[in-house]
Amino acid sequence: MGNSFGQLFRITTWGESHGGGVGVVIDGCPPRVRLTEADIQPDLDRRRPGQSRIVTPRDEKDTIQILSGTFEGLTLGTPICMWVRNQDARPEAYSEMAQKFRPSHADYTYTEKYGIRNWQGGGRSSARETVGRVAAGALARKILRDSFGVEIVAFVSQVQGIQSCVDLETVRLEDVETNIVRCPDAAAAGQMIELIEKTRKEGDSVGGLVTCVARGVPVGWGEPVFDRLEADLAKAMLSLPASKGFEIGSGFGGIQMKGTEHNDPFRATDGRVRTTTNHSGGVQGGISNGAPIYFRVPFKPVATVMHEQDTVDLAHQNTTLKGRGRHDPCVLPRAVPMVEAMTALVLLDHALRHQAQCHSIS
Amino acid sequence: MGNSFGQLFRITTWGESHGGGVGVVIDGCPPRVRLTEADIQPDLDRRRPGQSRIVTPRDEKDTIQILSGTFEGLTLGTPICMWVRNQDARPEAYSEMAQKFRPSHADYTYTEKYGIRNWQGGGRSSARETVGRVAAGALARKILRDSFGVEIVAFVSQVQGIQSCVDLETVRLEDVETNIVRCPDAAAAGQMIELIEKTRKEGDSVGGLVTCVARGVPVGWGEPVFDRLEADLAKAMLSLPASKGFEIGSGFGGIQMKGTEHNDPFRATDGRVRTTTNHSGGVQGGISNGAPIYFRVPFKPVATVMHEQDTVDLAHQNTTLKGRGRHDPCVLPRAVPMVEAMTALVLLDHALRHQAQCHSIS
Amino acid sequence: MGNSFGQLFRITTWGESHGGGVGVVIDGCPPRVRLTEADIQPDLDRRRPGQSRIVTPRDEKDTIQILSGTFEGLTLGTPICMWVRNQDARPEAYSEMAQKFRPSHADYTYTEKYGIRNWQGGGRSSARETVGRVAAGALARKILRDSFGVEIVAFVSQVQGIQSCVDLETVRLEDVETNIVRCPDAAAAGQMIELIEKTRKEGDSVGGLVTCVARGVPVGWGEPVFDRLEADLAKAMLSLPASKGFEIGSGFGGIQMKGTEHNDPFRATDGRVRTTTNHSGGVQGGISNGAPIYFRVPFKPVATVMHEQDTVDLAHQNTTLKGRGRHDPCVLPRAVPMVEAMTALVLLDHALRHQAQCHSIS
Amino acid sequence: MGNSFGQLFRITTWGESHGGGVGVVIDGCPPRVRLTEADIQPDLDRRRPGQSRIVTPRDEKDTIQILSGTFEGLTLGTPICMWVRNQDARPEAYSEMAQKFRPSHADYTYTEKYGIRNWQGGGRSSARETVGRVAAGALARKILRDSFGVEIVAFVSQVQGIQSCVDLETVRLEDVETNIVRCPDAAAAGQMIELIEKTRKEGDSVGGLVTCVARGVPVGWGEPVFDRLEADLAKAMLSLPASKGFEIGSGFGGIQMKGTEHNDPFRATDGRVRTTTNHSGGVQGGISNGAPIYFRVPFKPVATVMHEQDTVDLAHQNTTLKGRGRHDPCVLPRAVPMVEAMTALVLLDHALRHQAQCHSIS
Repeated sequence: MGNSFGQLFRITTWGESHGGGVGVVIDGCPPRVRLTEADIQPDLDRRRPGQSRIVTPRDEKDTIQILSGTFEGLTLGTPICMWVRNQDARPEAYSEMAQKFRPSHADYTYTEKYGIRNWQGGGRSSARETVGRVAAGALARKILRDSFGVEIVAFVSQVQGIQSCVDLETVRLEDVETNIVRCPDAAAAGQMIELIEKTRKEGDSVGGLVTCVARGVPVGWGEPVFDRLEADLAKAMLSLPASKGFEIGSGFGGIQMKGTEHNDPFRATDGRVRTTTNHSGGVQGGISNGAPIYFRVPFKPVATVMHEQDTVDLAHQNTTLKGRGRHDPCVLPRAVPMVEAMTALVLLDHALRHQAQCHSIS
Repeated sequence: MGNSFGQLFRITTWGESHGGGVGVVIDGCPPRVRLTEADIQPDLDRRRPGQSRIVTPRDEKDTIQILSGTFEGLTLGTPICMWVRNQDARPEAYSEMAQKFRPSHADYTYTEKYGIRNWQGGGRSSARETVGRVAAGALARKILRDSFGVEIVAFVSQVQGIQSCVDLETVRLEDVETNIVRCPDAAAAGQMIELIEKTRKEGDSVGGLVTCVARGVPVGWGEPVFDRLEADLAKAMLSLPASKGFEIGSGFGGIQMKGTEHNDPFRATDGRVRTTTNHSGGVQGGISNGAPIYFRVPFKPVATVMHEQDTVDLAHQNTTLKGRGRHDPCVLPRAVPMVEAMTALVLLDHALRHQAQCHSIS
Repeated sequence: MGNSFGQLFRITTWGESHGGGVGVVIDGCPPRVRLTEADIQPDLDRRRPGQSRIVTPRDEKDTIQILSGTFEGLTLGTPICMWVRNQDARPEAYSEMAQKFRPSHADYTYTEKYGIRNWQGGGRSSARETVGRVAAGALARKILRDSFGVEIVAFVSQVQGIQSCVDLETVRLEDVETNIVRCPDAAAAGQMIELIEKTRKEGDSVGGLVTCVARGVPVGWGEPVFDRLEADLAKAMLSLPASKGFEIGSGFGGIQMKGTEHNDPFRATDGRVRTTTNHSGGVQGGISNGAPIYFRVPFKPVATVMHEQDTVDLAHQNTTLKGRGRHDPCVLPRAVPMVEAMTALVLLDHALRHQAQCHSIS
Repeated sequence: MGNSFGQLFRITTWGESHGGGVGVVIDGCPPRVRLTEADIQPDLDRRRPGQSRIVTPRDEKDTIQILSGTFEGLTLGTPICMWVRNQDARPEAYSEMAQKFRPSHADYTYTEKYGIRNWQGGGRSSARETVGRVAAGALARKILRDSFGVEIVAFVSQVQGIQSCVDLETVRLEDVETNIVRCPDAAAAGQMIELIEKTRKEGDSVGGLVTCVARGVPVGWGEPVFDRLEADLAKAMLSLPASKGFEIGSGFGGIQMKGTEHNDPFRATDGRVRTTTNHSGGVQGGISNGAPIYFRVPFKPVATVMHEQDTVDLAHQNTTLKGRGRHDPCVLPRAVPMVEAMTALVLLDHALRHQAQCHSIS
């Protein structure tokens, strides 16, 4: 259990890193949305391995195929199944993993939980599972943009100690895509790339921050008291591999402020209400307030490193393990489309939920 | 929608700060658990207003009553409804709120979303709603402790800039309850109390951090890929009023480390596997690994302050509003039982989910 | 688990026949619906025991109280908790039931499942649990009528062998309420009442059929492939105590027809499409087609009879048991508001679901 | 929405009759169950068109392929995706259907609901969708049989007026499979086959009854009050294409009995409790009582007939339509594995739910 996300725009992902393939079923997509593979592929290309010199060289083309739910280029309102066939499988590269648990990976916990594990490349716990999320998220983003005027932009805002400076009101997807690390601050991006390349040569890995902003969300999305918009965003982000936290608006930093400083005053101009500051991060009482929604997600340094590490084997004997072969020294550039996808899934789901309850009665 | 939490130990809270009362229905509680009001009341007493000089003086006794689901002191396996009648209502104190939106409260967003709002004391968005959560959480904690050997301890680890030093391996509930701010570091606690009292006199408010640790969780709880244990914990914490973030294990700080530093090596002693460090925070791949689970939650400074602030009214005209009467200068001491309750709800739900799937087949 | 019903207009019932009371929480009700206790009480009066000489004389006034979710007579969009306090409890009347399982009641199965049972008057398996359903259903019917133009009428169409003749196109609530057995065919009603009174004197019980029709449902409600409108209606009906089946449209009788006879031809008049027959029962492919939706539900003879019967006790020893005290010789008249309530809950839930998916995209 | 079924053993089906294919994702399957395509294919072969001279000659091999969730022949506890590629598509055979609504099919309601319809062969409303159900059901049956000792047998008990006589205590799958109509009463089967062949020659269709029995279900499965075992079975059956009803145990016939006749007396032998009759159909208070669970499902005559019929077109103009090409004169033989599959899905889901709540506390 636990492989579905969303209430009304509901996705179920399936697949392991090695095996037939990875995919997603979307239930609840509105009908008559224009949809072909060409709407999905660009985000998958931003997620795929082998896209640049700073990510893992595993070369999967990740060509998406729509198996159901569309007719003559339009969605039918029926379940949409999309998948990517696994291709570049080298199970032999993983034979040592059949016997040993990689530190800070999911090998040990999956084995203990299920009593079995597909040890080829991480199986279900591989980031390859996110192919289905990114595909579904690409569709959700398209609907949000075309039908609701919502724009979502995520980017790498920090790698290890290298911070960037980006204006959340104006940053666009094109700015993010100007470099391979997906940081719209060109100077910081250069340093980040340099650090990642150096780290790769050392056989080590680094983590960092993804910042995401959603602009154009109308007032009223979010379902208190448990399905607050920020609660569902937090869950979405912590469901991503390697993420370790979430903060919205003032976040952890806000605790240094007094209430009189932190409160966002309302001002009206021509009957339109706005806040003059946005420490709330676009959400008050669990409901969007019309201001940009922004949040940050830390991703830990990737667990696979090319160094000998202490670990145990299936028989619970002490041993060591050293990473081999292809490796991602920094997951951040590929995490950007994942964050955008999960954000889109949360927002569209809440758009539909809001309409179901609040626009139904004349 | 959005007022239920959990899949198998599922709670639904109801009630507004003013009106008949606040309560909870629990569906899925195992049968034959010893349960009377005496099991619930202590946690409600830790949550209630008026408990000490550093929280709001609103004096609600918050006496819990069990309406269903038990028989001769044991749970029946049927829904358990518990409630607290509202008593200390002073709707007249809120008359200005009928017309004006309090900054950084939920007044504006509720009004825009639903087209109506109970403006008496915050209505549904009041922290009073958490009475139901704390009551259900007290039951969940009891089951976790008695049937699974899990112990949950939360405490105030920071108020504004005042930090504490607490050992997560050993801190106990009794330590937390030694002072009214619920910080087991006595020196820091003294400073925190002083700061809160000073802040109250200034009519202002402060925020801070709650840290929570769960010890004794066995390996295997958590349902990837979306209902990862940390994802559900993050959602639970962000569903609490005034919380702005979540981090587990190394959290935001972990991005400063290299992979070789961050990875938690496995070591086996007499066939028992442990990690020698715990940057993972007790969760790997979304599943508990047997190590203590620990995380931190920032709570913003309370929005109600005794100062004149810019805002708008129902007619979307600019105006000002000044808080009056009773006010909570710092929500942190009362947030502690809320964090514990939500943690217990997440863990027990996952305990039942794990057993449903993984222990069912001979 | 299993005490909630509905996806978007979601109810959770709670309470046992003896104990604090019985009630319901409704999550997802649209905001700004006029609602006071006076909207709910009439349907509860039609459900309550002691309402006439042909039902059980247990005299519960069943006065509904709204605890949350409304403000100044309007719904808030927040959870609505309603309850009825238990009053006429005579637990001593049930002492024999503490030791013996009543045949064809739920005593044995509850005891085996949960390892514990509230043996006072049936506990959770008592029809008293339907108080919460009828209360929530009364609200759903009101919304369906006022906002969607949907009218739901149920009636007793058969008691044992006594059949009635009623026009489903025109029958109204007022017709149903003209007699205490709730059969709008006056001649049949007289015979039914006579049979029920005779049966009561014999200490026995009889079953029968409830027929229900919903008129005014627009085309398009129902969510294939599993949540077809008729599938959710079937579940709703089989969830009622003592019901043993469900048939919609031609139902079991339809298997005697050929396809050419059974098909409902379409005809258009001024662009408005109708079927000239309605063997489909208003549903095609799981979706309403605009024709009246009609179905039938058989209720078995009540299990409590005033005769000595073979049974076993808690120790699994053979014994006998004879019903005592108050008893309902025929549940049918009281089942009518239950069937209406469950129908309303299904239809309103599907109305909201349809709007969420199909009206959201411009 | 509405394309998922089950709470803990949860399936989501996808696919249209024409397009990429049809399939299912199963979430919540216990790990370490032996599973290969060979476990699934036999039930699909019993469902597939073209299997005998009395079903539609559309010749789909329906070869199942497992895409995820297994490793070295065992389930992983992760989502299992299985699918069948569509092959024998002749969209040109359906061109008239692009413009006209087939009477008593779902063409009209889908078009009105979604504003779009895949008119090729029924699209999503085609019985082809049940491929995914039958595949998932085959897995559920295997687990029920191997781990819980539950046996499910369904058969055709009536075609139009031809009734059969079958002993529910002893009938086995092998008996059902002795003839192409799947009626274990050989004499009745012969008449049924004759009637179906005659009907096909007339270009017409006939309906009938499927009876199903589940033996070996332990006491305690079923989740009152809404997710009663019979309620979920009823929903499952009414979710099948062409079904119009459901009755369990005494069903509609039971209303002719008195309570003293209908009640099932309990008797104990060596401490083992049984009922001496089984009018309850194996379920009391919504929970299995250890007796065989049996129920009946009526399937209407197939809507596709080779006769000219009145209908309307997309422009809501009156017209006529005559079925062409391949047609199923009687859906009953192919409905048998569908009924078994849905029964298995309900039972296994309830087995897991029961264990989650009732076996979790020591």
